[in-house]
Amino acid sequence: MAKEKQQEFVQHLTPREEDFSQWYTDVVLKCDLMDYTPVRGCMALKPYGYGIWELIQQQMDARFKATGHKNVAMPMLIPESLLLKEADHVEGFAPEVAWVTHGGNEKLTERLAIRPTSETIFCAMYAKWVQSWRDLPMKYNQWCSVMRWEKSTRPFLRTAEFWWQEGHTVHATAEEAQEETLLMLEVYREFCENVLAVPVYAGQKSDKEKFAGARATYSVEAMMQDGKALQAGTSHNFGTNFSEPFEVQFLDKDGTLKHVHETSWGTSTRLIGAVIMTHGDERGLKLPPKIAPIQVALLPIAAHKGGVLEACADIRDKLVAAGIRVELDDRDTYSAGWKFNEWEMKGVPLRLEVGPRDIAAGQVMAARRDTHEKLALPMEGLADAVTKLLDDIQRSMYEIALDFQQKRTATVKTMEELGEQVKTGFAMAMWCGERACENAVKERFSATSRNMPFDQTPVGEDCVVCGQKADIVMYFAKAY
Amino acid sequence: MAKEKQQEFVQHLTPREEDFSQWYTDVVLKCDLMDYTPVRGCMALKPYGYGIWELIQQQMDARFKATGHKNVAMPMLIPESLLLKEADHVEGFAPEVAWVTHGGNEKLTERLAIRPTSETIFCAMYAKWVQSWRDLPMKYNQWCSVMRWEKSTRPFLRTAEFWWQEGHTVHATAEEAQEETLLMLEVYREFCENVLAVPVYAGQKSDKEKFAGARATYSVEAMMQDGKALQAGTSHNFGTNFSEPFEVQFLDKDGTLKHVHETSWGTSTRLIGAVIMTHGDERGLKLPPKIAPIQVALLPIAAHKGGVLEACADIRDKLVAAGIRVELDDRDTYSAGWKFNEWEMKGVPLRLEVGPRDIAAGQVMAARRDTHEKLALPMEGLADAVTKLLDDIQRSMYEIALDFQQKRTATVKTMEELGEQVKTGFAMAMWCGERACENAVKERFSATSRNMPFDQTPVGEDCVVCGQKADIVMYFAKAY
Repeated sequence: MAKEKQQEFVQHLTPREEDFSQWYTDVVLKCDLMDYTPVRGCMALKPYGYGIWELIQQQMDARFKATGHKNVAMPMLIPESLLLKEADHVEGFAPEVAWVTHGGNEKLTERLAIRPTSETIFCAMYAKWVQSWRDLPMKYNQWCSVMRWEKSTRPFLRTAEFWWQEGHTVHATAEEAQEETLLMLEVYREFCENVLAVPVYAGQKSDKEKFAGARATYSVEAMMQDGKALQAGTSHNFGTNFSEPFEVQFLDKDGTLKHVHETSWGTSTRLIGAVIMTHGDERGLKLPPKIAPIQVALLPIAAHKGGVLEACADIRDKLVAAGIRVELDDRDTYSAGWKFNEWEMKGVPLRLEVGPRDIAAGQVMAARRDTHEKLALPMEGLADAVTKLLDDIQRSMYEIALDFQQKRTATVKTMEELGEQVKTGFAMAMWCGERACENAVKERFSATSRNMPFDQTPVGEDCVVCGQKADIVMYFAKAY
Repeated sequence: MAKEKQQEFVQHLTPREEDFSQWYTDVVLKCDLMDYTPVRGCMALKPYGYGIWELIQQQMDARFKATGHKNVAMPMLIPESLLLKEADHVEGFAPEVAWVTHGGNEKLTERLAIRPTSETIFCAMYAKWVQSWRDLPMKYNQWCSVMRWEKSTRPFLRTAEFWWQEGHTVHATAEEAQEETLLMLEVYREFCENVLAVPVYAGQKSDKEKFAGARATYSVEAMMQDGKALQAGTSHNFGTNFSEPFEVQFLDKDGTLKHVHETSWGTSTRLIGAVIMTHGDERGLKLPPKIAPIQVALLPIAAHKGGVLEACADIRDKLVAAGIRVELDDRDTYSAGWKFNEWEMKGVPLRLEVGPRDIAAGQVMAARRDTHEKLALPMEGLADAVTKLLDDIQRSMYEIALDFQQKRTATVKTMEELGEQVKTGFAMAMWCGERACENAVKERFSATSRNMPFDQTPVGEDCVVCGQKADIVMYFAKAY
């Protein structure tokens, strides 16, 4: 296969070092993950991109169900009067709401918002559904798309419409709600690390950065290859902030009416952006096996020779039977070299090549996407060997990302150090808790407070910004 | 357990014979399938209702994938100019579109429709994606909700927002598109009969009843217990009706530019309504095992006695391990009798009771929801016996529904017979093909042409309406 052709095929990807942002856009489009549409800021998810999302959904949904949650579906429209009930919430979301004003040819008496998030409609329904302590907790989730009329958008990272899940739960006590909030944060942390192979920092957001209407917001923050933070999931404790205006009350065991304590938590198609920018390289996408729609690209070599296609079909069937997602690429319109590059670019974790000599030798040639390592695998016991290799790739990708995250995180004591550190990674610093200091960091370095780790072992004594006594450990970073 | 209590619990369901429509609404609400919301005509799907939908989705999606389709996600908003491109289509849908006119505080330069269906946006994207014959066919599907601003709504049957799947495919030739149209109709037929246990008549719609913009529409028509038809799924062949205005063209092997041939096909949460009205009885819902979120309700009897709860937990674990969906109802706040009624009303196919005497006898008492038959099952090999029973219930429910459908279908030769027949079922009649005759049936009997079966063996010579020579066999019925 001609070297030039390989060059030609890959040259369309902007090098990461040259322009990380353009590299990202190139990968997203050339790997057929999504496409732009005639609707401003709205994506179409193509089969390959949606395939990743389906695998994320399946594996996350299983975790929700295992922790006692049930799926529901709420209306996509929310009457303006409902949205106005919680003051901070409406202030946070009203500027980016898409409004429905007409149904058919008639003007509506009240405007309806396409949900930017569903706290308000869940509360309206919980107010109907919750009567007694016996009804609690109610732990519901929905998979849907939401709409936020963002000014500037980027595929997967910030789009007007995006696909997500939003869990909304109501509890009898503040303690239970807090427990739920942290439980779901932990589900997200574990999911990011074990399924997406994306290491994250879990912690609590500052008051400035918390969700509109929440008492406390927690997040998992991933680090992209340009050192910037990507908020990968959030979990909110609302206390009674919503249940009071929405009058979600229950008759407790002691015979008194009480407001429920509420949580919500969400992750979105943004996670696909996190995967791309954590693992991708100069060849393109690099997918962790657990969310790869195609885990193995199986390529016949000299397919016209007798027995090659039959041997490939046989291997495909055996791998499929072992639960491996395989694509037998028997297209005769493309050269083997072109296919190599295409599957590499698309981030398929493992490539298997089978030619007449391999068949004669009772083996298959395997090439790992992550390390580019090549190895011969015996035909005998192939499915087991492939499963092991995929596990190894999954683990190895996580370790490499973890190593990167650790190396790009540093403790800083001064504003100068902070400014330097956030150019390429996360800065851990002491912070006094004042919003003015957060603002100063943002103004000077375009960096924001990301979250406060649960391990609050001090890394100094004074606020990195104002120099006053500080007892909060905070991560700062530039962020998507 | 007190007979009165049972009475009390069930009395809230209006008898079917008295008012079928009210019985339906009672079942839908009391079984916790859905609830009304503050948004006119929009439902909230509660966990039990959504659980049914999830099982429908899983099993249908597997069929789509097995027939070579891939899932995608398209924007929920469609610019007005796109919707206007196909004349019949916009005429059909414009009156029931919800319009977005403002994003945040700004008025949009062009109104955006919340998708009532997605032919137009799929076409806009296919126009970008299709270049060459090598790209064809493209066979995509999406699971989403759509919005039609209906004047009068009924839970599941006709709601402003509803959840559905819509497949949209493009093909190189008219033959392939027709093949796809019929293939997906067959997928729907098989699904209705084998998964929902709902027998259907498959056939082609008349020109009057076809989809706005389609060249040919096919449907599967189910018969409800009141003898009315419910259109359970449709499959459309658009030919080049959309690809021409949208300029979806490909360079064919012969070097010429051609328009693609297009299909679309859909089913929705309406199927849940079909299940309710096909199988339900005076006790409430009756769910076919394949879509029952809870297949087995496991009830401890005298749960306070030693060993009962432990035995139940053990049985639950064994059934779950065999892939059976079990709910161990160990609530001590309700009597056994109350629970019997609740699970019956909720349509759980099988109830298992386990008390001290059963444990001593090494058995479990089983009660079938469909036949009310009770039988003792040995503890030994219980999972296998339950699996068999569930299979038998699934088959038996289909057979009973099929028998009903057959008995309530009759060939008619005169308008009088037709009018009589559509009071309680479907009329099969000869029809000349004139729209005036369809209109006459509608005006006189409020019945519509449903579809033309593929088996067009004549059942007479003259049109049932005008008496002219006729060679089309058509089903007529009142319909939801």
